[in-house]
Amino acid sequence: MDWLWIAPLSAFISLLFAGILAYIVLKRDKGTERMQEIHKAIRQGAIAYLKRQYQTIFVIVVILAALLYIVFSWQTSFSFLLGAGCSLLAGFVAMDISTRANVRVAAAAKRGMNDALTTAFYSGAIMGLCVVALSLLGIVSLYIVFDQDLGVIVGFSFGASIAALFAQLGGGIYTKAADVGADLVGKLEAGIPEDDPRNPAVIADLVGDNVGDCAGRSADLFESITGQNIGAMILGLALMPFFGINGVIFPLVIMGAALIATIISVLFVRAREGENPMSPMWRGLMVNTFLCAVFFYFIVDGMLGDINLYYAVLVGLATNLLIGVITDYYTSYKYRPVKEIAEASETGAATNIITGYAVSLEATALPVIVLSGALLAAFYLGNLSGHGIFGTAVATMGMLAPTAFILAMDGFGPVADNAGGIVEMSGSPASIRKITDRLDAVGNTTKALAKGFAVGSAALAAMLLFQAYLQTVQITVIDLAIPKVTVGLMLGALLPFVFASLAIRAVGKAAFQMIKEVRRQFKEIPGIMKGTAKPDYSSCVDISTKAALRQMVAPGLLAVFAPIVVGFALGAEAIGGFLMGAITSGVLLAIKMNTGGAAWDNAKKYIELGNYGGKGSLAHKAAVVGDTLGDPLKDTAGPSLNVLVKLLNTITLIFGLLFVTYHFL
Amino acid sequence: MDWLWIAPLSAFISLLFAGILAYIVLKRDKGTERMQEIHKAIRQGAIAYLKRQYQTIFVIVVILAALLYIVFSWQTSFSFLLGAGCSLLAGFVAMDISTRANVRVAAAAKRGMNDALTTAFYSGAIMGLCVVALSLLGIVSLYIVFDQDLGVIVGFSFGASIAALFAQLGGGIYTKAADVGADLVGKLEAGIPEDDPRNPAVIADLVGDNVGDCAGRSADLFESITGQNIGAMILGLALMPFFGINGVIFPLVIMGAALIATIISVLFVRAREGENPMSPMWRGLMVNTFLCAVFFYFIVDGMLGDINLYYAVLVGLATNLLIGVITDYYTSYKYRPVKEIAEASETGAATNIITGYAVSLEATALPVIVLSGALLAAFYLGNLSGHGIFGTAVATMGMLAPTAFILAMDGFGPVADNAGGIVEMSGSPASIRKITDRLDAVGNTTKALAKGFAVGSAALAAMLLFQAYLQTVQITVIDLAIPKVTVGLMLGALLPFVFASLAIRAVGKAAFQMIKEVRRQFKEIPGIMKGTAKPDYSSCVDISTKAALRQMVAPGLLAVFAPIVVGFALGAEAIGGFLMGAITSGVLLAIKMNTGGAAWDNAKKYIELGNYGGKGSLAHKAAVVGDTLGDPLKDTAGPSLNVLVKLLNTITLIFGLLFVTYHFL
Repeated sequence: MDWLWIAPLSAFISLLFAGILAYIVLKRDKGTERMQEIHKAIRQGAIAYLKRQYQTIFVIVVILAALLYIVFSWQTSFSFLLGAGCSLLAGFVAMDISTRANVRVAAAAKRGMNDALTTAFYSGAIMGLCVVALSLLGIVSLYIVFDQDLGVIVGFSFGASIAALFAQLGGGIYTKAADVGADLVGKLEAGIPEDDPRNPAVIADLVGDNVGDCAGRSADLFESITGQNIGAMILGLALMPFFGINGVIFPLVIMGAALIATIISVLFVRAREGENPMSPMWRGLMVNTFLCAVFFYFIVDGMLGDINLYYAVLVGLATNLLIGVITDYYTSYKYRPVKEIAEASETGAATNIITGYAVSLEATALPVIVLSGALLAAFYLGNLSGHGIFGTAVATMGMLAPTAFILAMDGFGPVADNAGGIVEMSGSPASIRKITDRLDAVGNTTKALAKGFAVGSAALAAMLLFQAYLQTVQITVIDLAIPKVTVGLMLGALLPFVFASLAIRAVGKAAFQMIKEVRRQFKEIPGIMKGTAKPDYSSCVDISTKAALRQMVAPGLLAVFAPIVVGFALGAEAIGGFLMGAITSGVLLAIKMNTGGAAWDNAKKYIELGNYGGKGSLAHKAAVVGDTLGDPLKDTAGPSLNVLVKLLNTITLIFGLLFVTYHFL
Repeated sequence: MDWLWIAPLSAFISLLFAGILAYIVLKRDKGTERMQEIHKAIRQGAIAYLKRQYQTIFVIVVILAALLYIVFSWQTSFSFLLGAGCSLLAGFVAMDISTRANVRVAAAAKRGMNDALTTAFYSGAIMGLCVVALSLLGIVSLYIVFDQDLGVIVGFSFGASIAALFAQLGGGIYTKAADVGADLVGKLEAGIPEDDPRNPAVIADLVGDNVGDCAGRSADLFESITGQNIGAMILGLALMPFFGINGVIFPLVIMGAALIATIISVLFVRAREGENPMSPMWRGLMVNTFLCAVFFYFIVDGMLGDINLYYAVLVGLATNLLIGVITDYYTSYKYRPVKEIAEASETGAATNIITGYAVSLEATALPVIVLSGALLAAFYLGNLSGHGIFGTAVATMGMLAPTAFILAMDGFGPVADNAGGIVEMSGSPASIRKITDRLDAVGNTTKALAKGFAVGSAALAAMLLFQAYLQTVQITVIDLAIPKVTVGLMLGALLPFVFASLAIRAVGKAAFQMIKEVRRQFKEIPGIMKGTAKPDYSSCVDISTKAALRQMVAPGLLAVFAPIVVGFALGAEAIGGFLMGAITSGVLLAIKMNTGGAAWDNAKKYIELGNYGGKGSLAHKAAVVGDTLGDPLKDTAGPSLNVLVKLLNTITLIFGLLFVTYHFL
């Protein structure tokens, strides 16, 4: 058992280090009074929303926990509650620190790039470390308390999935309802810039960045590593004859070591004079990957003693970097795809959208090919070691190893974005705005990278859970030649389409209300545009809050009950087809939506830099329309799809044995 | 062998009847001189394009025929050439009659609704009857000449697939490049109505209706019935011990009888005084379905003697009607989805598109659920009869039985559309325009229904070909639990995304050129807007022609070579996963694009009726943007995806045995 202690030990060290980072961040200057005022409004809105969101999730979680208690056992139910609780806690910490850091980044921007950069990045790092550490601690505790009963620990993963689903859906709807509403009336109709204090929806927009990007993505990746760890542990169970208990606890040790690698690499993130702020991030990620590669060599060697499995880990680490490069290519305005969209804006919104649509479809190709290659390579290496599918499990661990660092990069985004908003709204000098603008642009890139990472890791984690399902229900063949399985595949592939439709419609509906409210305020409060009267921010915050809570329920319930209904209707083999259908179409749609949305966003930014006529030109108006379509795709539907594919797999893993016994056809 | 003769006999009767219909149509009045002038320009453009398109296809077909000759035999190569030839011939007939009928419909509109309606519908019926008859005659001839060697006859299906792919792609790119270009500059920038003779792209637009909707859809459905027939015959081969040769020729007899049903039901299509012109269409379809149900009872009873298989036929017929009703719900402005898009246009193009996007995703649900239900029911009935998978084959025949009638409804659309254009451009009185406008609106509905039918039948035909593949290569299990098969599934699901991306980008690029050309003409030929100078129509026709021919090659080659590469790389079982992935994601995307596009189109039409401010309002402008995005989705990418999923299956059916022997992994 001595390897196991690396996991909780690293987790504790990480929490300690996160505490130190929090101390550093919170000690920094909070800026002018006007800045703090705006900051307080954002923080208030975010906490108020999170409180209500958690209340709603709480009700759903308690009902499901009761169900699990009745159908299975109090242990499963308890694991489930703990999983949901840890996920929500991680989300809360993420949101809490980001809403405190935003104003400090704004203030730090006065002192220069490096201070602002590190403040924002440390805030993200706190979130990343807490997410991974809490997941590890939860699993290890349950593993010890419930005497290594993995069947019960699966409940932890299910809890994490449910919490993630609603956190991501609710946060996603909230943030985009506000963003779309603010952009359409503010930019297109009133002609005022982003984050202008005269826009009544601006505070709701800034709140949204926190509840969507921070709390939402934390929950998403919390679920990924939890699912991946538990799935890999179940597969390790079958290899007890070969590796003993080491095969089971191996994933936990790997993630523990990855945490230590993250701590070290965080220290490498500091901007040199005049450097592009993206460079230190890349540097940190490289250090992180390198350290993981080194640590993992010793762990694989010591625990499993098989060099081929180490190569499989490297496949996972390399996949991660490759997907990062591909995502960058498709979403950065340095390259062809985004430029193409910007150029097409010259002939109006329609061609902008047609081109962006084509780009978003195309963007699925390379990531899927890379993932396919990784799966094949890992399986091949697994075969060489004599344990085929365990090779893919190990590669998945490699892919997920940098989770904490990726989350740090991701969490950087909304904080920088918020800081920009605070600088703009507090009427600070243009030189400061310039710094936050650069950070904001970098934040867009890191957010896009994190989403690419999140999809890739969701795909691999889901595949792992799928294999764990097969092992749990003792099915060895999912035969696509059987019509029932084919139908399962079709229905599984359908689910992400319907789910995404509900999520996007939710944003559309809420944005519609938001637009009407903003228009009303511009009309009925005459002094807003001149700056003599203050808009009513709180009514917009209220619209986003209510819409998010109301609209997240339907897609959420669909995600929970569809696999259960199909499972009881068609049985355990057909649900295997269902899962693969959902993973495949869910991942494709998620990449399409995430990448397409980011490309539209950056095409707009590219035009705003002065290309094709710059701000206010017809091309710019066209690009704003494209960006607005992209918003709910990349921040609501896309990320929620990541959660969906994992959730379906954890649900099936829990209910699988019932489907074997009870099914209609 | 006596049942077999029903097929060629019905086919000959159908061709004869088509000849009579052609005589009736061509005898009708050709209208004013001005009308004939426009008609000639359209016909000239269409024939010129088709000639060049056929030349390009000819080169590709000859190369592939040589390849088939080398790898397989001259018989396969010959079958391939015949398949491609018959498909192209059917497409040419369709286009020829539609470009002659258009002006006659315009002239008939002067005499009232019924004359115009029947002229357009007969034109469509000629196309429908020829398509089905040519497919049947081709298969029967090969079946007799090559002594019942189905392995060789598969070449016919492959030829039909290849011809359909390029006809649909080329036609789709042509028509939408012209349409998008004409709409964006004409409606949005110059503010002139649809089909205005001052618009330089208007002739290209009208030509496009013929080469896209007529020639393209003919080829698509020619492929569906060909693939379905041959696939079902291969499955019938395995049932020789039970049904003898009857099991093999059964699909041909069914399609022959369906042709007779079509001939009778065509006579039922005539408009009563003051009736909605859609009603006679529905009436005809009902008569057709009823007659099929009656005929098929005697055929199943006489040939197979199994009542359960007859029920499976009924499942197919019912599926067809259900999909029709669902498509109507999602694309007609009488119902919630289209109204929702129209309402969202009030807040601009962005909300119009977000809402339409959500609707298009949602629209996949019911058709897929219906198809799933049909597959399960048919398989269940097949099991009752002791031949499981043959039940789904028989249901597919039921689904495809009304093909000729559906094609007649579909062919009605572009002719009515063209007639409207001719009436508008020839400056005819508003009362005539009113009649063609009503026919045009009905044409939009029938086109949408035909596309719904085309997707559903493509899905079932592809499933049948998939089963035929399994039987041919003697694989009984496609195991999704094997990583190679999973990777096959992922790559298969990816292909439609990439293919659609290429198709949409092609339209975007061509439209971009078209917009620039139209803008140039408005600027450089000053008399256009006042009507004192004529625009240069031919330069726009030329842009569409060149763009279509150039841009159809890349997606076409991708479709042909992707399955071959994957097959040789991963082997015969993995390609099974590939096919199912492609069918599933292809069908979902096709429904999404077809239905979404039609819904955007009709939301615009709904606003043009005077809702939400009517023509020229901000909502209308927003709706035009949505319509423009929908155009390449519903008329280029969507229909091409139908062809793609079948093509992949015929290619695999041909090369399958090679994948068994030679593969890399």
